[in-house]
Amino acid sequence: MADAVLPPELEALVTPFRAKVKEQGDKIRELKANGAPALDIAEAVTELKHRRKLLEDKVMELTPSSSEQESKFDRIKMEELLKRRFFYMQSFSIYGGVGGLYDMGPVGCALKANVLKEWRDFFILEEGMLEVDCSILTPEPVLKASGHVDRFSDYMVKDTKTGECFRLDHLIKGHLEKLGADKKATAEAKAKYVSISTRLDGMSMEEMKDILREYDMKSPTTGNPVSDPMEFNLMFQTEIGPTGNYKGFLRPETAQGIFVNFKKLLEFNQGKLPFAAAQIGNAFRNEISPRSGLIRVREFTMGEIEHFCDPTNKDHPKFYQVRDRKATFFSACNQMDGQPPAQLTFGEAVDSKLVANQTLGYYLARLHMFLERIGIDPARLRLRQHMGNEMAHYACDCWDAEIKTSYGWVECVGCADRSAYDLTQHTKASKTKLCAEKSLPEPVMVDVLKVTPNKQLLGKTFKAKAKVVLEKIESLDKEEGKRLKEELETSGTSKVTVNDEDFEITKEMIKISEIQEKISVEEFVPSVIEPSFGIGRIIYSLLEHSYKVRDEDEQRGYFTLPAIVAPFKCSVLPLSGADELQPLVQSLSNELRKAGVSHKIDDASGSIGKRYARTDEVAIPFGVTIDFDSVRISPATVTLRERDSMDQIRLPLEDLARVVSDLSDGRTTWKEVEAKYPKFTQQQTVDKKDGAGEE
Amino acid sequence: MADAVLPPELEALVTPFRAKVKEQGDKIRELKANGAPALDIAEAVTELKHRRKLLEDKVMELTPSSSEQESKFDRIKMEELLKRRFFYMQSFSIYGGVGGLYDMGPVGCALKANVLKEWRDFFILEEGMLEVDCSILTPEPVLKASGHVDRFSDYMVKDTKTGECFRLDHLIKGHLEKLGADKKATAEAKAKYVSISTRLDGMSMEEMKDILREYDMKSPTTGNPVSDPMEFNLMFQTEIGPTGNYKGFLRPETAQGIFVNFKKLLEFNQGKLPFAAAQIGNAFRNEISPRSGLIRVREFTMGEIEHFCDPTNKDHPKFYQVRDRKATFFSACNQMDGQPPAQLTFGEAVDSKLVANQTLGYYLARLHMFLERIGIDPARLRLRQHMGNEMAHYACDCWDAEIKTSYGWVECVGCADRSAYDLTQHTKASKTKLCAEKSLPEPVMVDVLKVTPNKQLLGKTFKAKAKVVLEKIESLDKEEGKRLKEELETSGTSKVTVNDEDFEITKEMIKISEIQEKISVEEFVPSVIEPSFGIGRIIYSLLEHSYKVRDEDEQRGYFTLPAIVAPFKCSVLPLSGADELQPLVQSLSNELRKAGVSHKIDDASGSIGKRYARTDEVAIPFGVTIDFDSVRISPATVTLRERDSMDQIRLPLEDLARVVSDLSDGRTTWKEVEAKYPKFTQQQTVDKKDGAGEE
Repeated sequence: MADAVLPPELEALVTPFRAKVKEQGDKIRELKANGAPALDIAEAVTELKHRRKLLEDKVMELTPSSSEQESKFDRIKMEELLKRRFFYMQSFSIYGGVGGLYDMGPVGCALKANVLKEWRDFFILEEGMLEVDCSILTPEPVLKASGHVDRFSDYMVKDTKTGECFRLDHLIKGHLEKLGADKKATAEAKAKYVSISTRLDGMSMEEMKDILREYDMKSPTTGNPVSDPMEFNLMFQTEIGPTGNYKGFLRPETAQGIFVNFKKLLEFNQGKLPFAAAQIGNAFRNEISPRSGLIRVREFTMGEIEHFCDPTNKDHPKFYQVRDRKATFFSACNQMDGQPPAQLTFGEAVDSKLVANQTLGYYLARLHMFLERIGIDPARLRLRQHMGNEMAHYACDCWDAEIKTSYGWVECVGCADRSAYDLTQHTKASKTKLCAEKSLPEPVMVDVLKVTPNKQLLGKTFKAKAKVVLEKIESLDKEEGKRLKEELETSGTSKVTVNDEDFEITKEMIKISEIQEKISVEEFVPSVIEPSFGIGRIIYSLLEHSYKVRDEDEQRGYFTLPAIVAPFKCSVLPLSGADELQPLVQSLSNELRKAGVSHKIDDASGSIGKRYARTDEVAIPFGVTIDFDSVRISPATVTLRERDSMDQIRLPLEDLARVVSDLSDGRTTWKEVEAKYPKFTQQQTVDKKDGAGEE
Repeated sequence: MADAVLPPELEALVTPFRAKVKEQGDKIRELKANGAPALDIAEAVTELKHRRKLLEDKVMELTPSSSEQESKFDRIKMEELLKRRFFYMQSFSIYGGVGGLYDMGPVGCALKANVLKEWRDFFILEEGMLEVDCSILTPEPVLKASGHVDRFSDYMVKDTKTGECFRLDHLIKGHLEKLGADKKATAEAKAKYVSISTRLDGMSMEEMKDILREYDMKSPTTGNPVSDPMEFNLMFQTEIGPTGNYKGFLRPETAQGIFVNFKKLLEFNQGKLPFAAAQIGNAFRNEISPRSGLIRVREFTMGEIEHFCDPTNKDHPKFYQVRDRKATFFSACNQMDGQPPAQLTFGEAVDSKLVANQTLGYYLARLHMFLERIGIDPARLRLRQHMGNEMAHYACDCWDAEIKTSYGWVECVGCADRSAYDLTQHTKASKTKLCAEKSLPEPVMVDVLKVTPNKQLLGKTFKAKAKVVLEKIESLDKEEGKRLKEELETSGTSKVTVNDEDFEITKEMIKISEIQEKISVEEFVPSVIEPSFGIGRIIYSLLEHSYKVRDEDEQRGYFTLPAIVAPFKCSVLPLSGADELQPLVQSLSNELRKAGVSHKIDDASGSIGKRYARTDEVAIPFGVTIDFDSVRISPATVTLRERDSMDQIRLPLEDLARVVSDLSDGRTTWKEVEAKYPKFTQQQTVDKKDGAGEE
């Protein structure tokens, strides 16, 4: 399964690559053990990543495809089909298109809506999560607090004459690839180019600048010189309101909307922890030069869950339900040792502390189940742990669900234990306490500072501002309070700053005393476990995994999407255009509509075989054919065809809507239906004039 | 119903107001008949609107509320409840909030999701529409073509010292209201202030500037002078990509995404007309100073439908289904005559040409049905026709579905016949033909211009640019082609401009001849009928219409939302916290989840009566109580309570999930359920210790 197992003869070819990774991994461990400078460690990690990449490429090259279909996969052909049948298309195509923006046509839109419905049912309804729907427009202070204003950026350079921009890593990689492709390049030089390219990910702006200048790289489109590298923030900026003074951004993720509403959500949950909130919505990243189709876009739909829990207890009451499920785990340790991923149960992964806690393990298992349920090939799905240096500094454990596509392994879901980071940041920035309370086993006595103001004197001294000054003093944390207390005691005066204005405080104005207080509840900042789904990437992977070509019709691809997410559940195909069949087509369509089954009528001319192929192209799992028997023999029957097996059965018209509805919602299987009804061979009556269209 | 009928004694009070409107309406008709200057007509219309407003206010004042609940409606109280139970809240509240942005909490989010699900089922699924999901980010040329860059704006003024901005009409209105409230103001002056205020809507920027200066209006917050009025474009602007040269906007409506995809959609529909495309998504307007809660916001969800049809045939095959339905129609004519709206059937409205065509009539009827279905009080719903001068210049008939709320009549759905405007505009701007074809009854001969180029000479003269020059000539429309032909024939040369570059053409280079061509299909630009729904406004109106207070509990409001849109369908209430009841609570919750019934468990302490009131507050239509009989008497039964009647029945546990699911989806009614099961009076066994909590 996946890249976990290679046949021994191939594994031998990989062994030297594994050894190189392990050598470097060990070196890093040693550096860390000896307390080496962070810079040295970072450098060693860059080298480790480089070696890991070479190993991964080798494994990828040698790994047999999980299926014959995977090995024959032809992206160009699939994309042609996606475009022709309007699954999705570059936005504003008639105006020349805009990079990184895509419109979903009727097929893609229905597929997306079904994936989101499954997501909502599987996560929100099943787990009783609190769903919210927050603003896309976000004012600057919120994203300053979250770190996005300062850190959400890529490096780029500009063509000094035309102003055209290039993502720096793309530019360097492209340039080196070109050099490497030159016939005159020596083997040594080629190896060096590859080595630089795989190291780019971990390089600083300065290092990349040195490479840029060393190779005298120019604009690849004009040949003009390029500027020094600069940081480009990836958020779309705008102004809220007409003044021009209120900066806002389009949110780069939906999570912040949940964090800033934490207080109201906790209250809604009657103060109880743990609980999870979820949000489905669009987010935006102003990519410098988007490519890779739906994998890297400027506007995308996410599904995000924030599970808030007590940091001292991250057990999950339903973990037992997923304990025995297996998945491919690619641990940070195996990545450092050059070892392949391992097949483990979630129970093993959590018990061995590979996965930090039950709640994280539970969500990893659930997202793994979800992806398989909607049609992702489990053989091309792995859970990869972030290595220490990849992880955001606040996260304590982080995993990506990666899906193998023709673009390589693509990160489709992130799942991190973000500890108390987000709530702490927003508490600091907004001055609103975002925390929860829990009862102590028994009350305890704690030292607190008590402020006793001389309100009269304060009022006389600071007039209208006395109130804010006092508020400021009362809101000081313990340490600041102690400092103020000491200053007042030693020098008799001190200073308090409110809104950039200084106020001189004397010991006559306030008295600060240390007292003991009995406390029976404890305040704490909850930990956050965050599974975050990139819906567009999942949909793209799903399309690749379900794209098939039949041996007998190599020119025409189709999609084996599971019925629950298929854009339309059923096609209705009158055998011919004969008027005789029309009333039945209409009444059948009504029946299906009443049963909530989305369907497409294809009454265009052409053989029934061609029309089947056409509905296969848009992944319709079931096709109903209405023929002359249907209208001439009573009780009426129709043919039902299943897309993947192409098997056909004959069933009473009156059963049809219910059977297709049950099949579409997963309440029954095609196997069960096949067992119940006779196989269809051929119709008994044939219309001489119109029957000719039949295959 | 609605304001259509007033008792005779009240109607007498309104008669003079009606006469004043009619007098002005007649004057306008006369002006038009005499071909008066447009400016004079516009002035007369402004006066008409003023008189109509006075009439409407009078009628509003005299009209009895449609229900006792409406007359007792208390907005402050309802808003307090909406906030307390987190239906929705101002976004980023912990950062002080941002005007015009709202976050939906769990209750509002579920309500919104259900309204959108109903919308999708009622329109998209039921009518087989093509749903699309297009980008929010939109490049400038698209919105230039649609007219938004030039015309989508409001007037504003700035505080010359602080830069604070004010919407000009709001500023003037506020200032005049203050003057009018002054005790020293004469009756004459007061009437003048009212007169100006009601006329603001039709005034030009110059006229408003004169008023601003005449009354020497200042900033209402600082008293500083204000700038001259300026236009402020209401679109949020941003930059796409890193160059800073590519202007983009957040879409101000979702419709443009459909228009620019028209070609692909027509192709998807196999070239056939009519068809409708639909989109649900967010749109953005940078309001200058948003107020009125959810009614006027900066980010909002819309549902838009674009129905494309042959302009020569706007009949609708399903119109017969809605023909006999009644609604309140407020025609442009009645508005000019000072007459009240009329109760008409849709058949009458279309047959009399009041509504321009069957397709428009069909959509008006369908949206009317939809609004009633989700819970809008039909007595507070009217269809108001735009008067000639209100209508966008391209529309040929336009109606608003207006809903009466405590803010007055609010436009919640617009429904316009936009003729060929949008497709024509995008054809011009993108140079991509957006049109459809239809077979002619029989082929016809038409005159066409044929261009015969001397390619060699063109190539020699214009080199690499020969191709674009020829393309340009071939793309000329008939009129331009004829002009070129004539010029070449008379003077021997002419000029063609491509990308701002002029090319001198001689008669040796091209020959243009007029020939006859046999044509069997005809190209035409389809007409567009557009129903456009403001989901937030509909939800707000729905909340007002369903907000109720019980006589016996005046302090506590609740919402009688229909089950199909209610945020949660069912509450599960164990009678007490006794351990004995817990397993049943869990298993019942599982059953409901499996049946797809969203529910809330309320096992907090407090009397069952208090907990019923709490679930009423969040509009939960059904409540299941688990008591000691449920666990001690076999087979198990539970109590089911209906929110609006507060009636309770007792039914077997095993029926429960199915019954609630059927009730929630509208497959059965409470009346039918009540007829089937016994009324609940009181439980037989009482737990001595825990039963005390019962009401």
